[in-house]
Amino acid sequence: MKNIPVAILGATGYTGAELIRLIEGHPHFDIAHLAAHSQAGKKAGEVLPGLSGAIAELMLATADAAIPDAVQLVFTALPHAAAAKSVKTAIDAGKRVIDLSADFRHQDATAYKAAYGIKHPHPELFSSAVYGLVEHARARIAKADLVANPGCYPTSTLLPLIPLLNANILDDAPIIVDSKSGTSGAGRSAKADLLYCEINESVKAYGMPRHRHAWEMEEWALGFGGRKVRVRFVPHILPMTRGMLTTLHLTGDKPESWHQLLYNTYRGERFVRLLTEGRLPSTAGVSGSNRCDIGLAVLGEREAVVVSCLDNLLKGAAGQAVQNANIMFALDEGLGLSEHALWP
Amino acid sequence: MKNIPVAILGATGYTGAELIRLIEGHPHFDIAHLAAHSQAGKKAGEVLPGLSGAIAELMLATADAAIPDAVQLVFTALPHAAAAKSVKTAIDAGKRVIDLSADFRHQDATAYKAAYGIKHPHPELFSSAVYGLVEHARARIAKADLVANPGCYPTSTLLPLIPLLNANILDDAPIIVDSKSGTSGAGRSAKADLLYCEINESVKAYGMPRHRHAWEMEEWALGFGGRKVRVRFVPHILPMTRGMLTTLHLTGDKPESWHQLLYNTYRGERFVRLLTEGRLPSTAGVSGSNRCDIGLAVLGEREAVVVSCLDNLLKGAAGQAVQNANIMFALDEGLGLSEHALWP
Amino acid sequence: MKNIPVAILGATGYTGAELIRLIEGHPHFDIAHLAAHSQAGKKAGEVLPGLSGAIAELMLATADAAIPDAVQLVFTALPHAAAAKSVKTAIDAGKRVIDLSADFRHQDATAYKAAYGIKHPHPELFSSAVYGLVEHARARIAKADLVANPGCYPTSTLLPLIPLLNANILDDAPIIVDSKSGTSGAGRSAKADLLYCEINESVKAYGMPRHRHAWEMEEWALGFGGRKVRVRFVPHILPMTRGMLTTLHLTGDKPESWHQLLYNTYRGERFVRLLTEGRLPSTAGVSGSNRCDIGLAVLGEREAVVVSCLDNLLKGAAGQAVQNANIMFALDEGLGLSEHALWP
Amino acid sequence: MKNIPVAILGATGYTGAELIRLIEGHPHFDIAHLAAHSQAGKKAGEVLPGLSGAIAELMLATADAAIPDAVQLVFTALPHAAAAKSVKTAIDAGKRVIDLSADFRHQDATAYKAAYGIKHPHPELFSSAVYGLVEHARARIAKADLVANPGCYPTSTLLPLIPLLNANILDDAPIIVDSKSGTSGAGRSAKADLLYCEINESVKAYGMPRHRHAWEMEEWALGFGGRKVRVRFVPHILPMTRGMLTTLHLTGDKPESWHQLLYNTYRGERFVRLLTEGRLPSTAGVSGSNRCDIGLAVLGEREAVVVSCLDNLLKGAAGQAVQNANIMFALDEGLGLSEHALWP
Repeated sequence: MKNIPVAILGATGYTGAELIRLIEGHPHFDIAHLAAHSQAGKKAGEVLPGLSGAIAELMLATADAAIPDAVQLVFTALPHAAAAKSVKTAIDAGKRVIDLSADFRHQDATAYKAAYGIKHPHPELFSSAVYGLVEHARARIAKADLVANPGCYPTSTLLPLIPLLNANILDDAPIIVDSKSGTSGAGRSAKADLLYCEINESVKAYGMPRHRHAWEMEEWALGFGGRKVRVRFVPHILPMTRGMLTTLHLTGDKPESWHQLLYNTYRGERFVRLLTEGRLPSTAGVSGSNRCDIGLAVLGEREAVVVSCLDNLLKGAAGQAVQNANIMFALDEGLGLSEHALWP
Repeated sequence: MKNIPVAILGATGYTGAELIRLIEGHPHFDIAHLAAHSQAGKKAGEVLPGLSGAIAELMLATADAAIPDAVQLVFTALPHAAAAKSVKTAIDAGKRVIDLSADFRHQDATAYKAAYGIKHPHPELFSSAVYGLVEHARARIAKADLVANPGCYPTSTLLPLIPLLNANILDDAPIIVDSKSGTSGAGRSAKADLLYCEINESVKAYGMPRHRHAWEMEEWALGFGGRKVRVRFVPHILPMTRGMLTTLHLTGDKPESWHQLLYNTYRGERFVRLLTEGRLPSTAGVSGSNRCDIGLAVLGEREAVVVSCLDNLLKGAAGQAVQNANIMFALDEGLGLSEHALWP
Repeated sequence: MKNIPVAILGATGYTGAELIRLIEGHPHFDIAHLAAHSQAGKKAGEVLPGLSGAIAELMLATADAAIPDAVQLVFTALPHAAAAKSVKTAIDAGKRVIDLSADFRHQDATAYKAAYGIKHPHPELFSSAVYGLVEHARARIAKADLVANPGCYPTSTLLPLIPLLNANILDDAPIIVDSKSGTSGAGRSAKADLLYCEINESVKAYGMPRHRHAWEMEEWALGFGGRKVRVRFVPHILPMTRGMLTTLHLTGDKPESWHQLLYNTYRGERFVRLLTEGRLPSTAGVSGSNRCDIGLAVLGEREAVVVSCLDNLLKGAAGQAVQNANIMFALDEGLGLSEHALWP
Repeated sequence: MKNIPVAILGATGYTGAELIRLIEGHPHFDIAHLAAHSQAGKKAGEVLPGLSGAIAELMLATADAAIPDAVQLVFTALPHAAAAKSVKTAIDAGKRVIDLSADFRHQDATAYKAAYGIKHPHPELFSSAVYGLVEHARARIAKADLVANPGCYPTSTLLPLIPLLNANILDDAPIIVDSKSGTSGAGRSAKADLLYCEINESVKAYGMPRHRHAWEMEEWALGFGGRKVRVRFVPHILPMTRGMLTTLHLTGDKPESWHQLLYNTYRGERFVRLLTEGRLPSTAGVSGSNRCDIGLAVLGEREAVVVSCLDNLLKGAAGQAVQNANIMFALDEGLGLSEHALWP
């Protein structure tokens, strides 16, 4: 089989870097084009210290440079709004696209505007975009030309939540989502509040009163879980590079039966692992892997806490994107992805 | 004024070390005796690398060595159960005591047994113990011979919660307490799961289904807040040495009025700081200080998140203990304590 | 091609864990046996949180349990002395062995005794052991039944040093080796001085007056570099999990020509990368990869500093072991190993 | 005694923040003026999260705002060149000045130009500046109107080196200085290479072929040690906020006698601590204190390694500045400074 040429736009952010690493280790995709607007003209290896060999020598193109004709799949790892424009260009050029920004995670421009505060530049593409939460959307992903790769917080929230919503056993109360994220999720731009000395030895909540991902969670809790819920979401930033842990504080019927519900949904999944009841996951257990680990502890008669962990750059971004790519091209879904963490 | 001689039992754990540092910098207390059972016979400076000068040369006594007659105040920074025995001995010898363990934080042996799983060795002392949550118990502390220094999680939870309970505006629902703690709270014993490489770059929840501090929170929510509440408490351990952040997910009447309630309670306090509405604290902002910082964000019509931060070794342990000691000896409450963080 | 069954003894330390991860991702080796004495009877996944799937379910054997007949290659990741005994047993059973301990890194019992302070239990095996510094010993490794996998500090020192020794341009003075290592190199045993709170936010030198690896460096500086040198080695432990950086402070003839010497030696190598002159490597640039990055800066007329970086668990341990295994079984040397770092 | 009003220019960098904390805790200095050009018009507490109380409410002035007449002492914590201009203005206004920049650490414009690459704006002030390496310059500091506060690397190098130079027992060879610094030394500006995710889990050497502080070391090795030496200095940046460790690789006569030489020099000092022979310091042991800890290990007949540790923001910057201020105003030298570390 001849390899499939791909392009990565936004190649020098943390998500872009992770995409490069994954594609480099993938047996059936090849990188044919890397764009990184602010670094254009440099070699990839000058900006990304982890790269070696030929890929490190590849010249970075500008964001608007033409993508080679041979490229079949484009990954866009760009800020929102900028992403939509590149997606439009790529789709018009006949490429398939996996967009890692938030631009196509919503199904209409109103929700997008509520979350992002701007008018969407290309709402005409909404109808063709598939929300790529892999374990719940495989059939649609396989046929999609445009996959919206889910956000990290929504992935860590929706995976444990959807089976419980589908079982219709949760109380009709807001879903409390308390998330803790490593700092790489905040991106690579030179902001004073992301300096080492500001983040190290510190934790804080941010994004109040409503983080953008709350809308995404609600939209797809309805989309996949079939229930209109209110999500009360409080994210925190932690002194670590990778990793995301989401704590769901839930109430409902028979929490002692929820472990089985989760088990039934995910037992065949390679990249969602349910821990034995009472055991709770750590982010170290998934770092470097494409896994989402889920644990559940029953706290009382109608109360449980469900905890999920994933690597925000992998199952929360580049890893799920490659999983989507594998499905789009009818490849083994796990190609190029690790089930095991880089531990310690 | 002649200085007051004090003793510290359990001097070589992290809390004991912090007590030594604070007393060394205190103008009216002097260290007359240090005990540390497993390290007895060594000099303090051999076990505690941060100490210098005369105190570093002081020999560590065994836990059961007699405390010098001149000592007026004993700090016990020992494991629970062991602490109670040392407290009893010290009280019988006519000393005043500040116990940093959990042994006297409960008012009856039943609650203690529920939380700690053992029969309390000296329940006869319960009636004389005062729960030293300073801002809400000054008058009783001043006269106490035995102060139970509050736990770190309960301090970070009760300080923001009490004014809201007193105002009787919270819904009659469980209080959701999602806490994040630095690793020093887990103590200095050589356990594999506390190794650097196990904690670094990782976060996890622990202590399920019910951490011991949940009982303490409920007991004193009632004691100071006047309401019987159910606390749903989920603590997490973080890759940082110091710092504790507690996120309270609350519902109730008119959350837009809560900031004023907190302000009214704490406006004159040196060691509780309320941030302007909408701003949320970070643990870096309190690390090395005796402060508890509180922030509030209204999330919806009846929803708010209240976040508190403190240094678990200071306001969460040794700092509050010194604050208690100042009150017991009618000294300025802030002596030997810093309002400012060691930042960065 | 049918896969080659391998065994890992000492499977639950950090090096053992990394070996499992690498072999799991390797196309031609399969894990047939895992031993971990203190954890025997548990499943691998209970002790190693990063593992998933079938390997996580594999039961851990005792150290002295019989290795299945089918196993062709045994990795020993055990403490020194214990390793030698297991190596002997495996060799006697007709297995090929890669020993990651220090037991066969020396060519005679005298040097071993000087470095490790004990009598070697199986000196009769010295003559058959090959020191597996891959880039300088391929031919011998290919034929070896027993490969002594080099230490992390010696690998990071010898790779940059050997070409300069061979060129005979260094002054006849001690080689000053100032190394900085992540904490995972100190192993996974529950020691108080390896606790998170003792390592975090701290750096110290250790192992004085002479760390064991100094003898190993001198023996193989002679072995591969052809010169008897004195190594003055000072290692430091750093608050990070993985990564090792070695700074060589060197004097000699025409340091402006040394970059070319290094280039000539390593230009064809996949896992040794020479940075362009004046650029210096970081450990982040190699973490998760099997690379050793080398940089050189000329400081004066006869002075240069040469800096090397590697991941102590990969090129410094498990990665080089797999590289050796590939050579022993005539496979592509890079199978199962990454050239790119997991960055950030 | 009435308190002495002081001003801090460059108040919102890490060194400025530390100066504020120290002066706030000082019994005889009061902050009367804070300037921070880029943040002017904000309150100090908005930019510095660690501050509380009245100082947090103080408005930040522009760099060129007039300093109140009452101010007797000005601390300049500004970038080089900018500092010289502010120093000139303050001196002309009759203030005494402690300059924490590099602008007055050299005794002539040639050395300054070699190190900093620019023409010095006020060379006329060189003759009146005193290099404030406290333990070796007390008498001159007491009378100075302008003290040049030493750099962090030079302080950590000169303190252990001067006694050995004075004893004239070191070989006539370059002094090899291998330093490791926490990241706060790099300042608070928003640079991409100082982002949390770039520094965390990484170490690298930088500043080659010659860091600016090498000239400063040589100038004062001559000034205080009486010997013209060549310093071969290689600094490294580490994933920690505070702390600096310097490893001196030295050769000379009778290294077994050097510990005594160091002891003789520093035995009466509060802020320089010599560890017992063979013990080596850690940065955790000095973090938060104004101490420099020194350890020595003899490696061979004519070889020793001397290791020093200090907190780069304290003894390496703001702490030594306050020590200088105490001397200038004839106060107890240790006022407002801690001998004990904030440990852990």
